[in-house]
Formats: sequence, C-alpha cells, structure tokens
Amino acid sequence: MITRIDHIGIACHDLDETVDFYRRTWGLEVHHTQVIEEQGVREAMLRVNGTDDGNACWLQLLEPVREDCAVATWLERHGEGVHHIAFGTPDVDAAAGAAGEAGIRVVFDPPRTGSMDSRVTFLHPKDCHGVLTELVTSAGDLARRGARPVE
Amino acid sequence: MITRIDHIGIACHDLDETVDFYRRTWGLEVHHTQVIEEQGVREAMLRVNGTDDGNACWLQLLEPVREDCAVATWLERHGEGVHHIAFGTPDVDAAAGAAGEAGIRVVFDPPRTGSMDSRVTFLHPKDCHGVLTELVTSAGDLARRGARPVE
Repeated sequence: MITRIDHIGIACHDLDETVDFYRRTWGLEVHHTQVIEEQGVREAMLRVNGTDDGNACWLQLLEPVREDCAVATWLERHGEGVHHIAFGTPDVDAAAGAAGEAGIRVVFDPPRTGSMDSRVTFLHPKDCHGVLTELVTSAGDLARRGARPVE
Repeated sequence: MITRIDHIGIACHDLDETVDFYRRTWGLEVHHTQVIEEQGVREAMLRVNGTDDGNACWLQLLEPVREDCAVATWLERHGEGVHHIAFGTPDVDAAAGAAGEAGIRVVFDPPRTGSMDSRVTFLHPKDCHGVLTELVTSAGDLARRGARPVE
C-alpha cells in the first residue's frame, strides 16, 4: 500500500535562503515552486532521487506566507526543522481509508490536491507516534490509474 | 554528491510498539535490528523502497536504551517524532569534507560505522536550518568502492 518515501517536509523562515543552502551545500535544484493559498505556505520541491515504484523522492521546503497558518504556528513553537514526512501510495483514498479503519485520524477526508497536482491527505501525528504523516498519490500515478487529483 | 534520501530517523519510547504500528498500518517489516551501544539506542530498520542509485530508502526507528544518551534527552524535550534525516552519498568522507569547508559543523570527523555496516557522520542542526542531517555511505557502496566502513 505504501510504495515509497515521497518527501520530507521542512519548515523554514526564509524559503529563498533555505533553497540557497541546499543548492550550495548539495547541488539540489528547485524542480517546482508554488504558493498553496489554502495552507498559507510557499513551497519549493527539490528532487533528490528516483524510486523503484516509478516516482521520486523530494525535499519539500515550506515557508508560511501568513501568520495564522499551521506552518507559522508550528515554526513559532518548534523553530525550523522537519515538519512532516510523506509516504507515496498508488491509491491515497484506499490508504487513507485503511488508516481511518485502524483508528488513525485522517485530516483531509476526502483527500485534496497537493503539490504538483498530486492527491494528498494527512494523518494526525498523535495517532502516528508523533509524526505528522502525509499520504500522496503522484500526478503520474493518478494519470496511470485514470483518476483525477480531486473529485 | 547526494544521491538519495537514505532514511528518516524516528525517535520513539517503545521500539516494539512502534514497529508494530508500522507493520499493522502499512505492512512495513523489520529488515534489521541492533543495539548501538555507543549511541545508547536500539534501532529497527524498515525498508520502504529502492532508489535509483542502487540503494534503498528506510525508516529507522530509535529507542533509547539508557537515560543519558542524546536520543533520550531529545525525546524528553520533544516527545516522539522525526529525530533526523539522512542523505546517501557514495563518499561520506568527501561529502562531510565539503560540508565542513562550507562552515557546517561535522559531528563525527572522521565518520564512524553506522547501521548495517554503513559509514556515517552527522551535521549540526543549527548549521542546517534546524535539521539534524546524517550523511551515509551504504555498506554496498563501500564495497563497490573497495573502502572499509571505518579506517
């Protein structure tokens, strides 16, 4: 049901500065950037490697664009660092359904459009040993299955 | 220089319970387990996917086995959650050297033996935007390069 680690979400105060850190230090380049208004964040996706399920593994750098969003609140409490991890799955609806049946609180039900036209939801960290856990079906996997990102 | 996300290190209070959570929820199985006396932790490695550099991406679950180790201190302060992330590289010594030259504090210099006979070091989180960052050369890559885990 889980076929890869899709990305690691890292919250930062200054996206441009953090992108520059990863570029200078490791040569990682920005593959995609966007503002996700609903979540109040600006993101940069840095591709790290390909995965054997036909997808890829990314760093997702996140900067809050308003003070009342969840990432801003998280940054104030924790400082910069790893905000969440994301598992890739060919069918986020099925994976979220299984998690819900196992008693894990599912944050977006149904899933929503995520980064790069993926389909995503989150699982409550208190039900996942402290780890805010995202589930992602990539745009490529959605197309292969003939599914649309959001119904 | 960085060719994959090698693993996500997750600190937990009870390793068996956390392993059971990942098995029940996602079907992930323990590939390797060991006590790392020097770091005061018991670990379980759960393989998630293969990577296009010929290695794999893992969850590393960590339980402290004594109260005075770094992971125990971290758990007391943060509670369970993501403790560090690890990038895979074919040459941890070169990667750590480049990081050091860029002004990032390198914790193990030279690198030490890590999980599953890898060769590893850590970079100080304050120099990496709040992320405790491990660098790993896998046992397979060490063998391919004719290098030993620790000189």
